[in-house]
Amino acid sequence: MSELENNINERSFSNYEIEHGKRNIGVVGATGYTGMELIRLLTQHPDINLEVVTSRSSAGKKYSAIYPSFEGIFDNELLPVDSVSDHDLDLVFLAMPHRVSMDFVKDYGLENFRIVDLSGDFRLKSADLYEQWYEKKHSCPQYIEQAAYGLPELNRDRIRNADLVANPGCYPTSSILALAPLLMNSLIDPGSIIIDSKSGVTGAGSTPKETTHFPNVFGNFSAYGLLNHRHTPEIEQILSIVTEQEVQVQFTPHLLPIDRGILTTTYSRPSVDLNQDLVREAFLLFYETEYFVRVVDQPPSVKNVRGSNYCDLYATYDERTNRIITIAAIDNLVKGAAGQAIQNMNLMLRKIEKTGLVYPPLNP
Amino acid sequence: MSELENNINERSFSNYEIEHGKRNIGVVGATGYTGMELIRLLTQHPDINLEVVTSRSSAGKKYSAIYPSFEGIFDNELLPVDSVSDHDLDLVFLAMPHRVSMDFVKDYGLENFRIVDLSGDFRLKSADLYEQWYEKKHSCPQYIEQAAYGLPELNRDRIRNADLVANPGCYPTSSILALAPLLMNSLIDPGSIIIDSKSGVTGAGSTPKETTHFPNVFGNFSAYGLLNHRHTPEIEQILSIVTEQEVQVQFTPHLLPIDRGILTTTYSRPSVDLNQDLVREAFLLFYETEYFVRVVDQPPSVKNVRGSNYCDLYATYDERTNRIITIAAIDNLVKGAAGQAIQNMNLMLRKIEKTGLVYPPLNP
Amino acid sequence: MSELENNINERSFSNYEIEHGKRNIGVVGATGYTGMELIRLLTQHPDINLEVVTSRSSAGKKYSAIYPSFEGIFDNELLPVDSVSDHDLDLVFLAMPHRVSMDFVKDYGLENFRIVDLSGDFRLKSADLYEQWYEKKHSCPQYIEQAAYGLPELNRDRIRNADLVANPGCYPTSSILALAPLLMNSLIDPGSIIIDSKSGVTGAGSTPKETTHFPNVFGNFSAYGLLNHRHTPEIEQILSIVTEQEVQVQFTPHLLPIDRGILTTTYSRPSVDLNQDLVREAFLLFYETEYFVRVVDQPPSVKNVRGSNYCDLYATYDERTNRIITIAAIDNLVKGAAGQAIQNMNLMLRKIEKTGLVYPPLNP
Amino acid sequence: MSELENNINERSFSNYEIEHGKRNIGVVGATGYTGMELIRLLTQHPDINLEVVTSRSSAGKKYSAIYPSFEGIFDNELLPVDSVSDHDLDLVFLAMPHRVSMDFVKDYGLENFRIVDLSGDFRLKSADLYEQWYEKKHSCPQYIEQAAYGLPELNRDRIRNADLVANPGCYPTSSILALAPLLMNSLIDPGSIIIDSKSGVTGAGSTPKETTHFPNVFGNFSAYGLLNHRHTPEIEQILSIVTEQEVQVQFTPHLLPIDRGILTTTYSRPSVDLNQDLVREAFLLFYETEYFVRVVDQPPSVKNVRGSNYCDLYATYDERTNRIITIAAIDNLVKGAAGQAIQNMNLMLRKIEKTGLVYPPLNP
Repeated sequence: MSELENNINERSFSNYEIEHGKRNIGVVGATGYTGMELIRLLTQHPDINLEVVTSRSSAGKKYSAIYPSFEGIFDNELLPVDSVSDHDLDLVFLAMPHRVSMDFVKDYGLENFRIVDLSGDFRLKSADLYEQWYEKKHSCPQYIEQAAYGLPELNRDRIRNADLVANPGCYPTSSILALAPLLMNSLIDPGSIIIDSKSGVTGAGSTPKETTHFPNVFGNFSAYGLLNHRHTPEIEQILSIVTEQEVQVQFTPHLLPIDRGILTTTYSRPSVDLNQDLVREAFLLFYETEYFVRVVDQPPSVKNVRGSNYCDLYATYDERTNRIITIAAIDNLVKGAAGQAIQNMNLMLRKIEKTGLVYPPLNP
Repeated sequence: MSELENNINERSFSNYEIEHGKRNIGVVGATGYTGMELIRLLTQHPDINLEVVTSRSSAGKKYSAIYPSFEGIFDNELLPVDSVSDHDLDLVFLAMPHRVSMDFVKDYGLENFRIVDLSGDFRLKSADLYEQWYEKKHSCPQYIEQAAYGLPELNRDRIRNADLVANPGCYPTSSILALAPLLMNSLIDPGSIIIDSKSGVTGAGSTPKETTHFPNVFGNFSAYGLLNHRHTPEIEQILSIVTEQEVQVQFTPHLLPIDRGILTTTYSRPSVDLNQDLVREAFLLFYETEYFVRVVDQPPSVKNVRGSNYCDLYATYDERTNRIITIAAIDNLVKGAAGQAIQNMNLMLRKIEKTGLVYPPLNP
Repeated sequence: MSELENNINERSFSNYEIEHGKRNIGVVGATGYTGMELIRLLTQHPDINLEVVTSRSSAGKKYSAIYPSFEGIFDNELLPVDSVSDHDLDLVFLAMPHRVSMDFVKDYGLENFRIVDLSGDFRLKSADLYEQWYEKKHSCPQYIEQAAYGLPELNRDRIRNADLVANPGCYPTSSILALAPLLMNSLIDPGSIIIDSKSGVTGAGSTPKETTHFPNVFGNFSAYGLLNHRHTPEIEQILSIVTEQEVQVQFTPHLLPIDRGILTTTYSRPSVDLNQDLVREAFLLFYETEYFVRVVDQPPSVKNVRGSNYCDLYATYDERTNRIITIAAIDNLVKGAAGQAIQNMNLMLRKIEKTGLVYPPLNP
Repeated sequence: MSELENNINERSFSNYEIEHGKRNIGVVGATGYTGMELIRLLTQHPDINLEVVTSRSSAGKKYSAIYPSFEGIFDNELLPVDSVSDHDLDLVFLAMPHRVSMDFVKDYGLENFRIVDLSGDFRLKSADLYEQWYEKKHSCPQYIEQAAYGLPELNRDRIRNADLVANPGCYPTSSILALAPLLMNSLIDPGSIIIDSKSGVTGAGSTPKETTHFPNVFGNFSAYGLLNHRHTPEIEQILSIVTEQEVQVQFTPHLLPIDRGILTTTYSRPSVDLNQDLVREAFLLFYETEYFVRVVDQPPSVKNVRGSNYCDLYATYDERTNRIITIAAIDNLVKGAAGQAIQNMNLMLRKIEKTGLVYPPLNP
């Protein structure tokens, strides 16, 4: 339990001095979907300067020349990656693919700027586990230990002081938030968990593939990555640390024919006597002080969080079957990636946690 | 076990004399989605005359005047419901809403023509259970007993001789087909079943509603009917009869932003030692002689069955978690409704079972 | 030409004193799509208090109880319409249906607060024309004359001083912006204009209908309202005033299977010698000082403006056929409705015109 | 006028002896979208043997191993292209990319089997024009002359006797059918034609690209290929031959966020006095004997023809503006490609023209 707080009181927002003034920020890998979403959100952030925005493939071009939606809002020039060294940066977001991010950390270290890494490279707490699931030897295992897992609702204090934050995966964010109140209050059997997740296509990245070709996805729906998706060990590791016991989950992702959004439905067996009110109260209490987790009283929908950093969360208990069902909805690119990364940045830079992230979802 | 065969050999297609010649068919309630799909498929059926097609609201109009997609293919006039009495019909499909179908059966009986009822009115084997889940007193409980549950893969012989067939619900079709091989071979714990289902919007019918308004569904995804969907008792009843023991399922439907298709993911605990090969073989063997169930070796997708009567079925075993996962894909309007109804009709009229139903799915 | 400036210099942003301080705003009819979008945008506006938000059908309920996407952002209670009288309001948005808005104006007048009406009730400059196209006698024709047409790019000065602004229709906004530079510079034959427009489904409102039932729209596309859509006289009237001559347009709307967005393609015949550079320059010059009109150098797409107040505009000339083609993309709920209404409010209240409206589009 | 009949009487279905018996067919390039659609339709054709089905990349594999939707329907092995020589084939469909098809014709000639080429290689009547628009020198210009343009409604007699049929493009099919009655009856000014077309994404082929990546298309809409799309010369050429005068069209394609379907809206100026009835009658008369063209009395929609060989066609006249508007809806993969190819095959092999093509569209 050194890493994650297991107590609701400890979890709650401990006081700290808010630091005023603008900070200098870099985004490395700004042309993928998570990079693009970082730019979208950071242009609205009042407390930062978007100082350096890099791209391996498009350095030298105006950002809005690549993504015309940004014209008039963010027309900065993309720089080569190594220009992070030429600027006085407080924090750098890494929005690069898995297996590439760790090389950046290895090369640049943590002395010059703090890092929020949106890839999976520093999420697993062991280089062996990493190698097993990411099929590559970890290039800088020495940083794994100090990387804080960037889920503020569970790990706020460590994030605040970390130099390296491993921003959670999109499926793990929705899954962990949907299960933590149950596990941390010892309400369920940690071996009974089933996670049936459904994600929009942006989760698969911006590179065209057979599986993301429009006619293959439109009007379609299917499961993928059964038994062996990389987010399985990530979910299990975090939930195990949280409960100080081994948690094993059955995780099945599905591909939704939409652009953004994850809906995660979990099933588990209570380990104590429960009823619907108790379950609901456990969630309300657990997330009482959390701005971005909204415990709702109807099954949530992904469009109610589209474009926003909210996680809408529903929990119920089926007396007939003696099972708990929880459902979480997030925007995979915001709370599942860029928004959460900024939430982490706010904590690290002593800004108000929700700064730059309070927008109504785009619905309809 | 009087109703459903519990033995694979018994299930298999017993020989019968094929009867030649055209039979006269009626469709009552032809303007809803299942009625429309019946017409679409029946116009291609070589062994029938589509003699009477009725509509309460549109009697007197040409079918293609209401649905222009049928122009040049089916331009017959819609008749009032009671015109079924004026024709010499061999079989009538009821494509009316729940709670309305039973009145038709009460009024017209089974003496003049056999009936395939696509509503839920004769699926549950007790009038009390019906009243509890459909919130209306059953109007002709005397017919419930003799109604055969119209899932040919499990109940072929009874269907063949039935005068009244209760065509299965769309979710139950996919769920039962995905679980029957496990339960009928006693491979799983009957209390461990979780069914996470996802359906396209045509499953909600042709009447515009808040929940099916385009901007509310497009780009969206959510669960609904948690804990209390009507298909729960239907699934449990059939699976219980099949296994001669009480089967309880956790059934959670979700609304997919597509027009057609259901994907059902099931989770269960083995009750015996298993491995992936054994599970897969159990499915291959169970459905060996079934034309419309295709046991596939990759997770299925709904577009691979779009517009067709196939059920694509995948089964695997997760050694790590000791769970069985099965996934079924059907077109809710075909194998989940009209196609299966025609499959039942073929059995009842001594036609080759797949007549009029062998078309490649519309993909892409 | 009294109403609209026909000269680029006159159009340009004349200086005025920015007035500081918060102003009190009301939204009447907040539960339709344009009302919802007004709330979404106004919650982000730094210079206003959202004092009164009304709903005929849902008065007494919390806004976020009806639209859960707003939970934690806008939880105010919906009030009955007449509560606008109980508050000291500077400006009221009317987001009610056509034919209803005018009664509000008649009942409440313009003495107590200024009004931006998002319906079509004050767009047409004659009560007779209104009656002809809206099939109802106008209930307060005395206000028609003073209503300023709320397209800031063409009518900024009048809007600023108006007590009643008729916010443009979504199709007219895209059509007029796509044609004004050509007509106001006398580059095209005013009788040669064809407008082929395509709109997302939110343009049809939030009430479920046959034509907006998900399965009827999904995977579908069609034209509607040929020859007689109400936006035809609106487009013609404004373009005629602009050019001081009769402009006649062929306007054909189509329904896109998406939630938001309009793409308008126009065709016209040059009346002078042209080439591609001249056409493009005319647009660049015309919109040089306009923040919300982005003249782009590739055909625009609706997703590049999703959720934003931008109008992306492309213009080209086909030498082979001697025709000009222009294409405009807007979000029908923002620049086509609520965003433009706020742009008008900013002008009326002496705020910086783009305040509260500078967000990157939600793409992907 | 040697190629296309300019007279309605001549166009009509001249009598010919229907030839009975099965014919042997090959499909070269069966794994692209048009190839897949050919297989889908040909498996339902009663008069042919699908003898050879080839693929460059997947030879040796079962067809259903590549496309699981075909399991149980078409499990044949894919052969290398040159196996067309090993079989006694009556007709071969070429479903290969532009610029590749012509090499097949050059290599195999027309002595051993007749060919329906679904690519653009033999549509343009001049090798120079081909080179200009397809940016490659034509590899066998000697066959261009004898290639019949495969639009049965306009060119039935030539198709019947041709050894090489150039199957029309999808946009040209919808455009030409929508304009031919006007031009062939000299009702419109041949220089006034504007064609605003919208196509589903399968029209762009099965290879994943940036422009067809799901998140780039979903919720999006845009124009492309302005001024220079390859279908422009194809449309102009055919319409010019039809009218024995130069026809020039303004053709603008757009990309619809759906999988299948084209909707084409045309605008033109009458050259004679007209009214709505006259226009509609001209279309009804022109297509009176055409089974696959349905002249409808409401604007058509693409879902009403989904999966079918129909072209739904609407024509109207706007008295106010003195313009004719026509709208055509087809399934780009059926009437716009594979279905029309089979219609051509039926003519060539003296089968009833609609054999194997009479299915209701898949709607909803």
